[in-house]
Amino acid sequence: MDATEAQSAEAFFASAPPLKDREVIVARVEEFVRRRLPIGGTRMVCITSGGTTVPLERKCVRFIDNFSSGHRGAASTECFLKAGYAVIFINRRGSAQPFCRSLPEDPLLTCFEPDGNKGIQPDPKHAVVVQEAVTEYHSALKTGYLLHLPYTTLFEYLEILRIVSLSSQQLQRHCMFYLAAAVSDFYVPWNSMVEHKIQSGVGPMAMELAQVPKMLMLLRHVWAPEAFCVSFKLETDTNILMKKAEAARERYGMHAVVANELETRKQKVIVVTSEGQKLVEKDAFQADVEIPLVNFLIAQQTSYIEAGGVYV
Amino acid sequence: MDATEAQSAEAFFASAPPLKDREVIVARVEEFVRRRLPIGGTRMVCITSGGTTVPLERKCVRFIDNFSSGHRGAASTECFLKAGYAVIFINRRGSAQPFCRSLPEDPLLTCFEPDGNKGIQPDPKHAVVVQEAVTEYHSALKTGYLLHLPYTTLFEYLEILRIVSLSSQQLQRHCMFYLAAAVSDFYVPWNSMVEHKIQSGVGPMAMELAQVPKMLMLLRHVWAPEAFCVSFKLETDTNILMKKAEAARERYGMHAVVANELETRKQKVIVVTSEGQKLVEKDAFQADVEIPLVNFLIAQQTSYIEAGGVYV
Repeated sequence: MDATEAQSAEAFFASAPPLKDREVIVARVEEFVRRRLPIGGTRMVCITSGGTTVPLERKCVRFIDNFSSGHRGAASTECFLKAGYAVIFINRRGSAQPFCRSLPEDPLLTCFEPDGNKGIQPDPKHAVVVQEAVTEYHSALKTGYLLHLPYTTLFEYLEILRIVSLSSQQLQRHCMFYLAAAVSDFYVPWNSMVEHKIQSGVGPMAMELAQVPKMLMLLRHVWAPEAFCVSFKLETDTNILMKKAEAARERYGMHAVVANELETRKQKVIVVTSEGQKLVEKDAFQADVEIPLVNFLIAQQTSYIEAGGVYV
Repeated sequence: MDATEAQSAEAFFASAPPLKDREVIVARVEEFVRRRLPIGGTRMVCITSGGTTVPLERKCVRFIDNFSSGHRGAASTECFLKAGYAVIFINRRGSAQPFCRSLPEDPLLTCFEPDGNKGIQPDPKHAVVVQEAVTEYHSALKTGYLLHLPYTTLFEYLEILRIVSLSSQQLQRHCMFYLAAAVSDFYVPWNSMVEHKIQSGVGPMAMELAQVPKMLMLLRHVWAPEAFCVSFKLETDTNILMKKAEAARERYGMHAVVANELETRKQKVIVVTSEGQKLVEKDAFQADVEIPLVNFLIAQQTSYIEAGGVYV
C-alpha cells in the first residue's frame, strides 16, 4: 500500500471522535483472544454485520445510513459457532442477532402474553423459537465462544475493527476476518462537520461528502497481515458486481471476496479467490446459504494455514 | 394555503412508491375511528414518533435518516392512554414502544435466561419491568384503545398520516394530532432517483436534495381542518429554537408547537400557543416531562372543544 493511503487513514482516526469505553473494549478483546492461545487450538473469526451511520452534524440529528438487516452476519455467526470457532461479533445496534432470525419484530411484545397470574409467558405460536433463541445465545456467551461488540457510527465501527485486528495478530493464520458489514464509502470529516443542526431554508440542500480511506488495505497489510480476510461486495446491478468483486480481491489482497446480488443474495453468492470464481448455493435441505458459504471458507482457511507452515 | 403548496404536495404523493398493504391499513384505521363515535365520548389522538428515512436509491442501499429514539412519542402514548384517549401510534420501526422505555437494548436476549428445564424465564433483575411492559401493552391492545401503525420511509410516513387524518375528520375537534416524529425536510423525488446503488468512484460525492412539501399545512387546513394540532420543533441551538417555533405556529396555524432543545428536552419544553409561551417542566415526583406536557395539551384541547360549540 502507498504512503498516501496510510496517511489518509491516520488522518481519519486522528480526527475521529473518541470511542466511548475504549479501555473496556480493549480489555475484553484481549482477554477473548488470549483464550484462543496457544494457536492451533480454537480458531477465531471476527464477523462484522449491519450498516454504519455517517453523522452529518456533530450534535447528530441527521445522518446517512447504509441499509443492511444484518441477517448474513447473524446467520454466519451461528454457522461459525457450530463449526467450533470463537466469534467476535461486531454488529450495528438494532440489526439482526444470532439465533434470533426467525423471530418477528419486537419479539418481547409480539411473542409474549400475560399468563393471567401477574406473570408472562411466550405465546404458543412462538414458544419454540423464543426458547431456542435465548437458550442458544446464552450458551454461546457462557462457554466463552461469543463476544458481542455493538456499534452505531462509521467512526465506532472502524475503531473497534482496528482494536480487534491489532489484538488478534498473535493468532496469525488461525484468525479470520469476515467483513459482512455494509460500510459507508463516504463521510463528513469530524473537523469539517457543522456543530448544529443543518437549517432547512428555502430551496434544495447541497452536500459534499469525502471518501472514507480504504481501511481494507490497512487491515490486510498492517493491522492483521497474516489473518485470512474475507470481504463482501453488494450491488444491485449484476453487470457491475463481478468486476468490482474481482477488483477488490486484487486491489486489497483479500483471500476471498463474496459477491452478492441484492435480489438473489439469500439463495446464492459467488466467492472470488485466487483460484477463480466459485458459485455457492444453498440446497433444498439447507435453511441458509451461509451454511455452504461458511463451510467453503473454513476449508479455504485450512488450506491457507497448511500452506503457510505448521504453527502448533 | 396557496395553490403552489397544494400542487407540490399532490406531486409528492403522485410520484411516491405505492404504500404496501394500503387497503388493510385504511380498513384498520376506519374501524378504529368508528369505535370513537358518536363524538363526545372517547377522544382520539394520533401520535407520530421516531425518525423518517429518505432513500437515495430506488433499490435502497443508502438513505438519509433523522435521529430520534422515539422516547417522547412512546412516553406520550402511555400518558394519553392513562388519560382515557384512544391512541393511533404511528412509529418508526425499531424506535421506542410504549411501556418498554425502561428496558435495555435487545430485551429478549438481555432480560431472559434459560430456566434449566428447556424453558426460559425473565432474570430476577429485569422481571418486574419485563412483566409490566408485556401486560400493559397487551391490555391497551385488547381493550381496543391502541392501534399501532409502523413505518420506515418518509413516503410511508406521509401516506399513513394522510390516511389517518382524512379518516378522523368525522371526530372533528375531538381528535388531536401530536406530531412528535422527526420528519426529514429534504428528500430525493422518486422519479429522479437512480435505480441502482450510487457508485463510489474517485473523489467526493455531491448530492442535491429537494425540499419536502410542507405537509403540516395540508394536514391543518385540508386533511383534518377541525382537529387540534400539535407539532414539535427540535433544535440544538436555543437562539434559533423559539423563533422557529413561533414561526411554525403562525405559518401552519398549529394550535400548539412544542419547542425542544436537544440537551434539555427530557426535563423541560416550551409550548407556544396563541396565548403565548408556556414553560412545562417535570417536577421531582414525575418520571417524565410528558406527564405535565400531555396534561397541559389535554386542557388546551378541552378549551378548544368548548369554544367551538357542543357536538354531543
